Amino acid sequence: MKPRAARLTETSLIEAVRRRAIGGEGIRVGIGDDGAVLEPTAGATLIATTDLLVEDIHFRRRYAEPADIGWKSLAVNLSDVAAMGGRPRWALIALACPAATTMEEVEAFYGGLLALGAEHGVALVGGDTSSSPAGWFVNVTVLGETTGAPRRRSGARPGDVVAVTGTLGRAAAGLAVLDRPKAPAGVPADTLADVTTAHLRPRPRVAEGQWLGAAEGVTAMIDLSDGLATDLTHVAQESGVGARVTVDRLPVAESTRAVARALGGDALAWATGGGEDYELLLTCGPGAFARLSESLERATGARLTPIGEIEAGRAVAFVDARGRARPAAPGWEHFVTGRRRG
Amino acid sequence: MKPRAARLTETSLIEAVRRRAIGGEGIRVGIGDDGAVLEPTAGATLIATTDLLVEDIHFRRRYAEPADIGWKSLAVNLSDVAAMGGRPRWALIALACPAATTMEEVEAFYGGLLALGAEHGVALVGGDTSSSPAGWFVNVTVLGETTGAPRRRSGARPGDVVAVTGTLGRAAAGLAVLDRPKAPAGVPADTLADVTTAHLRPRPRVAEGQWLGAAEGVTAMIDLSDGLATDLTHVAQESGVGARVTVDRLPVAESTRAVARALGGDALAWATGGGEDYELLLTCGPGAFARLSESLERATGARLTPIGEIEAGRAVAFVDARGRARPAAPGWEHFVTGRRRG
Repeated sequence: MKPRAARLTETSLIEAVRRRAIGGEGIRVGIGDDGAVLEPTAGATLIATTDLLVEDIHFRRRYAEPADIGWKSLAVNLSDVAAMGGRPRWALIALACPAATTMEEVEAFYGGLLALGAEHGVALVGGDTSSSPAGWFVNVTVLGETTGAPRRRSGARPGDVVAVTGTLGRAAAGLAVLDRPKAPAGVPADTLADVTTAHLRPRPRVAEGQWLGAAEGVTAMIDLSDGLATDLTHVAQESGVGARVTVDRLPVAESTRAVARALGGDALAWATGGGEDYELLLTCGPGAFARLSESLERATGARLTPIGEIEAGRAVAFVDARGRARPAAPGWEHFVTGRRRG
Repeated sequence: MKPRAARLTETSLIEAVRRRAIGGEGIRVGIGDDGAVLEPTAGATLIATTDLLVEDIHFRRRYAEPADIGWKSLAVNLSDVAAMGGRPRWALIALACPAATTMEEVEAFYGGLLALGAEHGVALVGGDTSSSPAGWFVNVTVLGETTGAPRRRSGARPGDVVAVTGTLGRAAAGLAVLDRPKAPAGVPADTLADVTTAHLRPRPRVAEGQWLGAAEGVTAMIDLSDGLATDLTHVAQESGVGARVTVDRLPVAESTRAVARALGGDALAWATGGGEDYELLLTCGPGAFARLSESLERATGARLTPIGEIEAGRAVAFVDARGRARPAAPGWEHFVTGRRRG
């Protein structure tokens, strides 16, 4: 029998979190004091990242369950640490939710978050809670470490290969499905589940990020949160270079293409501008790509696809196989278009 | 001439933050990559704390200017680090505000926050921004360090003196003034400013916390965010002890008493239950108090007032000078009473 929804109090919330918080190495003081006290690895540098998820901006409660919100709010931060080549270790969670939220929903939120944390050995060490006059607001801060040099956005050089892990556009296909009042007809359930899960419960490339962080030859790295067009532009700007991507080479899953056909959507637009895939984009010297790609797949199972080249200049161009310019879907500009960003 | 309010975009927000971020020691990568890369002090332990401030829960825009919100959102976290005896070093800021917010308001928010950060050598190293469908939501994470043993809530022992820095109830008096449509008649402007400033721009006890963190004889420490009754109960529960506070000994500023007289308020209720004073409460052996008190005042200028004793048992009692029980104002329970908490 499920417990009945209890009236939320801050004390009960903190107790619920404290009960569920998993232990972990390097924690001298966890939840329940004024601050967490953590023991960094000697000689390691610290990586710190924070991400905000806001109801009706980043997700809608109509399709995102509390457990999904918890999962994703941690996932987007793990992805940032991975993009720096770091090992995520500790998380702090701030949650504001409406006073009508039940304890079951709050427990489900932490359940989703802690399930992903447990997969990656990330412990919940602190947080804050508040009621919210509007919807859910979640802020997660993750602290990680690296003993090597962190991977920056700024190291790409003309001639470098641009490559991505996994496939692109799946999360955008998922959002296109979730945004509709009902599922599109004629698409198999497992295809729909593949894309909606990619949107609701992204799998950050934690192992891949650490592997690529330690590998020789990677010149720049970033995670794909805002979409390929925007995130590659970040790399180009920070590195002072341009880039050219051949859209026909973009890895797009068959599930994404099937959903695009069913909805009359544009799979390539999702792949270039959709965002929230939480894959890694990296650049490396042309001579290093084959070795990196083979070794990464052997070590982690992840596929690396070369999608373009870094060029001199400042332009970031998307072209088809014949070299004709293809306008990329615009990058995610948060306050202008106002729906989500991870 | 002031710049005209610009339409907010996430890129312009990030640029604004990046321009204003102050440099600092131990920052290998600051704002502008997937995560900040920080260099911890060798041998130090890390202190991490996070606090959420929500419009219409923790503050109202009617009286809290963006610069106040920025200041306070950092102050409450610095106070937590101070309560652990740590030195605050780095801050990450997540800000969600309505799409109608102007760039001037956002700049003012960061201005207030960075002004306090500069006072304490705390650098802004990362963050996230979002539009908000409701009001302002601010989450700040502060990372600090200590080379000694962190101060816990759990070390109080029967016989210990309970003492607080500064005065109590001033922030609650300030809120009582700010919550009224107009200022009470007959109270001098500097008295009003004293209490409203205490509420809007609390001064965390950063130097005092570090001094007390390194001093011998302090057995437990906490900052007074939720109010004396609640925060002392936290110490008692974590330490497995009881406590007795003599309310006549509580340090209450003359400004607080004057505002209480003018508004028909209860200065002692503000001092015990009001919260948000961000003073430090500590316990120490009875033989250590005089030395600690004199040395702290010499080192930092802060006054330490003994207000009660730690006792065996579990009860936290508030009594008057004759030993009669005086019910303390109830502690701040966030989801039940629903207005603010720092």
